[in-house]
Amino acid sequence: MLLKELREEVLEANLELVRRGLVLYTFGNASGVDREQGLVVIKPSGVDYGKLKPEHMVVTTMDGEIVEGNLRPSSDLDTHTLLYREFPSIGAVVHTHSDYATSFAQAGLPIPALGTTHADYFYGPVPVTAALSDEAVQGRYVHETGLAIVEYFRQGEDGQPIDPLAVPACLVAGHAPFVWGRNAHDAAHNAVVLEAVAKMAYQTLTLRANCESVSKALLDRHYFRKHGASATYGQC
Amino acid sequence: MLLKELREEVLEANLELVRRGLVLYTFGNASGVDREQGLVVIKPSGVDYGKLKPEHMVVTTMDGEIVEGNLRPSSDLDTHTLLYREFPSIGAVVHTHSDYATSFAQAGLPIPALGTTHADYFYGPVPVTAALSDEAVQGRYVHETGLAIVEYFRQGEDGQPIDPLAVPACLVAGHAPFVWGRNAHDAAHNAVVLEAVAKMAYQTLTLRANCESVSKALLDRHYFRKHGASATYGQC
Amino acid sequence: MLLKELREEVLEANLELVRRGLVLYTFGNASGVDREQGLVVIKPSGVDYGKLKPEHMVVTTMDGEIVEGNLRPSSDLDTHTLLYREFPSIGAVVHTHSDYATSFAQAGLPIPALGTTHADYFYGPVPVTAALSDEAVQGRYVHETGLAIVEYFRQGEDGQPIDPLAVPACLVAGHAPFVWGRNAHDAAHNAVVLEAVAKMAYQTLTLRANCESVSKALLDRHYFRKHGASATYGQC
Amino acid sequence: MLLKELREEVLEANLELVRRGLVLYTFGNASGVDREQGLVVIKPSGVDYGKLKPEHMVVTTMDGEIVEGNLRPSSDLDTHTLLYREFPSIGAVVHTHSDYATSFAQAGLPIPALGTTHADYFYGPVPVTAALSDEAVQGRYVHETGLAIVEYFRQGEDGQPIDPLAVPACLVAGHAPFVWGRNAHDAAHNAVVLEAVAKMAYQTLTLRANCESVSKALLDRHYFRKHGASATYGQC
Repeated sequence: MLLKELREEVLEANLELVRRGLVLYTFGNASGVDREQGLVVIKPSGVDYGKLKPEHMVVTTMDGEIVEGNLRPSSDLDTHTLLYREFPSIGAVVHTHSDYATSFAQAGLPIPALGTTHADYFYGPVPVTAALSDEAVQGRYVHETGLAIVEYFRQGEDGQPIDPLAVPACLVAGHAPFVWGRNAHDAAHNAVVLEAVAKMAYQTLTLRANCESVSKALLDRHYFRKHGASATYGQC
Repeated sequence: MLLKELREEVLEANLELVRRGLVLYTFGNASGVDREQGLVVIKPSGVDYGKLKPEHMVVTTMDGEIVEGNLRPSSDLDTHTLLYREFPSIGAVVHTHSDYATSFAQAGLPIPALGTTHADYFYGPVPVTAALSDEAVQGRYVHETGLAIVEYFRQGEDGQPIDPLAVPACLVAGHAPFVWGRNAHDAAHNAVVLEAVAKMAYQTLTLRANCESVSKALLDRHYFRKHGASATYGQC
Repeated sequence: MLLKELREEVLEANLELVRRGLVLYTFGNASGVDREQGLVVIKPSGVDYGKLKPEHMVVTTMDGEIVEGNLRPSSDLDTHTLLYREFPSIGAVVHTHSDYATSFAQAGLPIPALGTTHADYFYGPVPVTAALSDEAVQGRYVHETGLAIVEYFRQGEDGQPIDPLAVPACLVAGHAPFVWGRNAHDAAHNAVVLEAVAKMAYQTLTLRANCESVSKALLDRHYFRKHGASATYGQC
Repeated sequence: MLLKELREEVLEANLELVRRGLVLYTFGNASGVDREQGLVVIKPSGVDYGKLKPEHMVVTTMDGEIVEGNLRPSSDLDTHTLLYREFPSIGAVVHTHSDYATSFAQAGLPIPALGTTHADYFYGPVPVTAALSDEAVQGRYVHETGLAIVEYFRQGEDGQPIDPLAVPACLVAGHAPFVWGRNAHDAAHNAVVLEAVAKMAYQTLTLRANCESVSKALLDRHYFRKHGASATYGQC
C-alpha cells in the first residue's frame, strides 16, 4: 500500500473536522500531497466517517488520475489537485461547509481581520472569490473552483500577490471555504480556527456593522509571533 | 405485526431527529408509507423517545384510519396522509420544530438557495405557505396544513409546479417545516440538512440582508451532481 | 423528614434545568408547594448541583419562614412564596437565567407568540414586567420582584387579567424569567420550552423585525389541543 | 518543587476554561500569584491541555523572570505580571479568546450592565481599552497590553478609578478579554460568567440596539448581594 503514513495523516485530519463539528454527515474532505512522489492522498466520496480507514483513502497523481484505491475519490478532487500544482508550498488541503465560514462565502463577503485570533493565523482578510460565471459552472466546474482561488491569490488585494501560507484559506462565493497548510494536521487546524474566527467576525459585524480591521502593526505583531524565524509562541 | 421493517425504519428516523438535536422533548414525528399495501406507519403522539419501540408505531390506512396499534397516532397524522395521497413519489414524511427552519416559518419567509449546501439537496428555495385562514384553522386544521403545502407545490413559483422530490421540504407559515423523501432514512436526512441550511441562511441574511441566490447554473450543477442519472457524488 | 416526595420532585426539576443547559453554575432555582400543609420546598442557595440531595432542600411556610433545613434557602425565596400566595392554581416555580429568555428580559421586550411551538404552551405573549422603581429595588426587593409579576397578570394586556396557568411564565425586566406550572415537572418543562421559544423568537425577529404574531384562531387551536377538556395531544 | 498548591489551582483553572468551552486548542492561559513569596505561577505556552500537569507550570518573579520550569511561559506573561504589580488585590489572572467577549473586544465596545446576571459579578460595564498605538504594538507589546488595562482602570469612567475587584475583567480592543479574581478559582469562574454575560448582551443588543443599562439601584442591590460584608447569597 502506497503512502501509509500520509494516508493516516489525511484520515486523522478528516476525523479532526468531525470531532470539531465542522462537518455534517459526509460534507467535507481532506487530502495531502507527497511532492517527492508526485502523489495525492484524498478521502473517498460520500463514505461514512465512522467507517473510514487508511486503506479507504484514494491515491492519485497530481493531475487526479487514480493510482491506488477501489473507491471513487472526493468529488472536489480537481480543486485539491489544482491547488497543489499552483501553490507549491502547501502540503494539504481541507474543504468543509463549516457554518460560519460558509455563511460569509454565501454572502460573498471576505472575513476581515478584526482581531488577534484572526491575525495569529491569517495575515490579512480571508478573501472570497468572485462568483463563477455560468460557463465555468457548466464547464470543468471543480477545476474552475480551484482556478477562482488561484487567480484571486495571484492578483491579490492591491496588485500584490498573496502568499498561500500567509493566508491559508479562501472562501468560494456561494459555496464554502477551502483551507490548506504545510501538512494535513495544520490544514485541519487552520480550518477549525477559520470557523472560530468566522463566528467571531459574524458576531462582531452584527454588533457593529462598519467595524474596522486591526492595524497593520497588530497584524504584523501577531502573525510573526506564531510564524517565521522570530516566532515566540509555543515550545520550540 | 404488520410492516416490521417499515416500523424499524420509521423508528430509526425518529431517533435520528433526536440524535441530531432537531427535536425537544416529543416535538417531532416521522412516518413512512407502504404503497403496495396502502398503509402508513407513524410515531405515536407524545411518547418519550427513549421508550419508543417498533411495536409502539401506529399503522393506519392512507386515510388515517387505525389498522394496528394501541396508542394514539401523532396529532399531525392528517398532514402526513394527505402528503402521501397527493405526492405519489414520496415514501416518508418528517415533521420537526427544528429551530432555524422554524424561525423562517415564523417569519413567513422562504429559505432562499444561497449556496451549494442548499443546492445539493433543494433544487430552489424552500417555500413557505401562506398563513392559514381562520376558517382553515378552525376547521380540519391538520388536513388544511397539508393542503396549504400541496397547493403551494401545485401552483409553484412561476406557474410551474414544483416536484416534491426536487424540493423535499416546505415551511408552514407560523408553524414549522414538513420534510419528506423517498424513504424514512432520506426524509430524516433531509430534515437534518434543512436545519443546517436554514442556520447558514439565517447567518447569511443577518450579515447581508439582500444577499442574492446562487445562479440557475450553480443550482443545476450541484443538484444534478447528487441526483438523477448522471450523479457523480458518493459510491455508486 | 417532611415532604419526602415533594423534595424529590423539586430536586429532579432543578436537575432537569442543568441537563437542558438552562443554568450555569448555581444560577437557578426550583421550588414546589404542598397546599394542604401550606409548606414550600425550595433549593438551598448557591450549592453545587452535583451535590444536591433531597435532604438539602429547605422547607418553609407560605410566608418563607424556615420549618426544616440547615441550609439557607434560595435568595429568590420571597418571589416564590409570593407567587404561591397570589396564584392559587400553581404548584411549582422555576427561576433561571436561561440566555435567550433573559435577553428578552434585558431588552425589556415580551416574547410575542410567533408560532405554534409558543402557542402549544403559552396562550399569548410571555409578558415582561415594567422596570422596578429604585424604591422597590432598595426595599423588599425579592418580594417586589414577585409583586411586579403578579400586578402584571392582574392588570393583563387589555384590562383582562391573565390566567397564570394559561401563560405560565413572566420575564422580569433587566433580570430573567420566572416560570411555573401545576407541579415541579411541569414548571421545569415549561422553563425548557420557554428557552426554545425565546431562541426561535430571537431568530425570527432578527430576520424580520416587525414580524406579526400568529392569529387568535391559531393560538386557540394549538393551545386547546394540549390543554383543557378537549385536548387531543399525547396519550390520555 | 515550589508552590505545589498554587500550581494545582492554576492548572485546575486552566482546565475549567476548557471544560466550559472558553478555549479552542491552546488559546488561553491562567496564572496565580503568591504575594508573600513574590512569585507567579503560569501555564506554559502552546502546550496541549490534555497533557498539562502541575509540574509543567512555570514559576516566575513578579517581573517575569523564570525561577523554576523548563518550558517557555505563556506568551502573555508580561500582561499577567503587570496586572499583579498594579492591582495588589488580585490573586489570579485568566486570558481567553472566548467568542462573545472577544466579539465585543473586536467591535471596540464595552459590555454594558444590561441585567442582574451581569450585576451579580461586574459592578458596572466591562470596559474596553482604546486600540493600542502602533508604537505600543511594535514596542513592548505584551507589557503595553497590560498598561492599556491598568490605565483604563486608573482613569475610570467619570474620573473615578475603577476597583479591579468590583469589575474583574477588561476587554482589550481588537484582542480579547483579561479577567481576574481573588484566586485562580474565582478568576476562571469570572471568565466563564463573563462569556455568558457577553452572549446575553450580544443577543439583547441585536434585539434592541439602544437598550439601556440597569439602574444604579439594581446594580448596587445585586452586586452587594454577592459581595461585601452584607452578602446574602450562598451558604456563609
